[in-house]
Amino acid sequence: MTKKIALLGSTGSIGTQTLQVIDEHPELFEVEALAAGSNIELVLKQIHQFRPSKVSVASREAAESLKAQVPAGTKVYYGEEGLVEIAAGTQADTVVTAVTGSMGLPATLAAIDEGKTIALANKETLVTAGHIVMQRAADKNVAILPVDSEHSAIFQCLNGEPRERLHSLTLTASGGSFRHLSREQLRDVTVEDALKHPNWSMGAKITIDSATMVNKGLEVIEAHWLFGLGYEEINVLLHPESIIHSFVEFTDTSIIAQLGNPDMRVPIQYALTYPDRASLNAKRLSLAEVAQLNFRKMDFDRFPCLRMAYECGRMGGTAPTVFNAANEVAVARFLRREISFLQIEDTLEKVMQRHEVIAHPDLDTIREADTWARRIAAE
Amino acid sequence: MTKKIALLGSTGSIGTQTLQVIDEHPELFEVEALAAGSNIELVLKQIHQFRPSKVSVASREAAESLKAQVPAGTKVYYGEEGLVEIAAGTQADTVVTAVTGSMGLPATLAAIDEGKTIALANKETLVTAGHIVMQRAADKNVAILPVDSEHSAIFQCLNGEPRERLHSLTLTASGGSFRHLSREQLRDVTVEDALKHPNWSMGAKITIDSATMVNKGLEVIEAHWLFGLGYEEINVLLHPESIIHSFVEFTDTSIIAQLGNPDMRVPIQYALTYPDRASLNAKRLSLAEVAQLNFRKMDFDRFPCLRMAYECGRMGGTAPTVFNAANEVAVARFLRREISFLQIEDTLEKVMQRHEVIAHPDLDTIREADTWARRIAAE
Repeated sequence: MTKKIALLGSTGSIGTQTLQVIDEHPELFEVEALAAGSNIELVLKQIHQFRPSKVSVASREAAESLKAQVPAGTKVYYGEEGLVEIAAGTQADTVVTAVTGSMGLPATLAAIDEGKTIALANKETLVTAGHIVMQRAADKNVAILPVDSEHSAIFQCLNGEPRERLHSLTLTASGGSFRHLSREQLRDVTVEDALKHPNWSMGAKITIDSATMVNKGLEVIEAHWLFGLGYEEINVLLHPESIIHSFVEFTDTSIIAQLGNPDMRVPIQYALTYPDRASLNAKRLSLAEVAQLNFRKMDFDRFPCLRMAYECGRMGGTAPTVFNAANEVAVARFLRREISFLQIEDTLEKVMQRHEVIAHPDLDTIREADTWARRIAAE
Repeated sequence: MTKKIALLGSTGSIGTQTLQVIDEHPELFEVEALAAGSNIELVLKQIHQFRPSKVSVASREAAESLKAQVPAGTKVYYGEEGLVEIAAGTQADTVVTAVTGSMGLPATLAAIDEGKTIALANKETLVTAGHIVMQRAADKNVAILPVDSEHSAIFQCLNGEPRERLHSLTLTASGGSFRHLSREQLRDVTVEDALKHPNWSMGAKITIDSATMVNKGLEVIEAHWLFGLGYEEINVLLHPESIIHSFVEFTDTSIIAQLGNPDMRVPIQYALTYPDRASLNAKRLSLAEVAQLNFRKMDFDRFPCLRMAYECGRMGGTAPTVFNAANEVAVARFLRREISFLQIEDTLEKVMQRHEVIAHPDLDTIREADTWARRIAAE
């Protein structure tokens, strides 16, 4: 029996790599449905290759143009409703949520309601609505499988171990493109400097988030929800080589770590094959070639955004939503050269100071907090 | 329900640490039976502390002297038969085999026949009779749980993963006390030099075996039997810090490693609590404090004993028995200053060259091969 996959965000980086994994294993997987944004050319190619039964794109116009070109029997949808249809309206066993931004949330919740396994690659889902999503998943007995490399590492290390035997978990952080610079030296860094990530080739937004450590901060919040640990049990360790992707420590002091070359297909495939594994045509890690791994204590003064993320996580409620939304605006402004690199953290600090946290927010409240944060951050 | 433990070799290094672990967890474990050698003073102390129902010591004289001093109801045995009684003649759930040398084998087989879980800390059991022991354990559906830190690491990493998804396993090796020396420099090393092991505090025999890499070679053979992998799937990696205790690589290129400070209580306790874990009052590993881990490809020219061990493993039959027995004699002669350090490997080479391997040996044949090898190595 092949596993049927619905893929939200098929033309992005995670989406295309998910399709590579599926393509390598036709005996294991088939594509049931695809949702893309506005890259019609690429999604059309994907449709002809993988023959999904349903497809959705961002806009009505894109859908109309697509309809004329898809094979007979492929149903075309669009917009937020289309995304929900792809997530919840098919025979898919597993839904990969690789869309970016908050639009992934309603679709993910709809998929959970239909009892589908979630392979989660959308950060906002847990950062903004972890309390809602994890409760819903527990109610429906649905597994939320992480696709992010750090969370997948933790998930692989935990495999089969009783959760109450966990002492702590540690997310490793490369430190990003500016890890060798002091705060003084950060004053004059440019957009071009910031976009050179040492280990992973990623989009502009996440590369900046790596350098500010906001990305790691959001991962801490996700880990809190995914693994049910308090923030004092979640650590971040500087590890420039990004070879140890993360690790867990048990109550008996034994540490289990997951290692590998940076290749997102490994965690993607693990989420799809779980609890089994399958072969993957990827470069094997040779520790003899790497020769040396380095570790440094995380410095919260050097990376104040990480400290802020912990604080937001502990505050809970709307705080992580506001932190995330303000960061999106601040990074966009930095990329447009409207503000300097260090003004990203200033923006976050100011927005957080003005925010009055609302506990246990529902989806509307989360949306309002998000909108408010974006408005303030843009000022 | 507490787990009942029979401990073979209670006064040795593994034995005393096993009792420390049991002592820390009276709610989990109780001592059902103890077997010791000739350290009557210590075993008597252990008897009064842990109140086993049966005890065995090496000789009839020791048993007689002990009988007068044990609490009423404690039965005292001695010799090989006594060891078998402790292993197989009690209500114990788990038998920890921490005796050294080949006398552990009959007792271990007797315990397997009685369906007891084996926590294995006796190297000879699998090196000399892996084909017999693993078959017997499979027939009786008995688990063989490793106590050695490297094999425990592999075992912890494999937890719950389907064996056919394993690509390879890698045992790490510190390189021993002479890891920085060239072969030329090894000519004149002394017994005192050899006994300075960098990471673990161990007995003289195993410290020398670390420096020659015979110890790692025997571990490779044990891993072959414990985990059912071919020798081409078992690697050895030089890792001077001994922090990564060993790791496995899966078919999807993901590597799972076990890490920790060197503390034998961790693998001992894991074998006792498996499949669960329990807290342990041991020093937690801080990778930030360690700061750096180093790795180097294993050099078989520098460590010819490791190459020989692989060859013996591949030959199978009586070859590993002869290798192990010849090594015991050679190391004893080195410790008595009768031969030089490099003559240990010369001895092994010569004995192996003269040995005609017998395939699928039974216990008598193994014993004969052992005796033959000791005689030749002593010449």
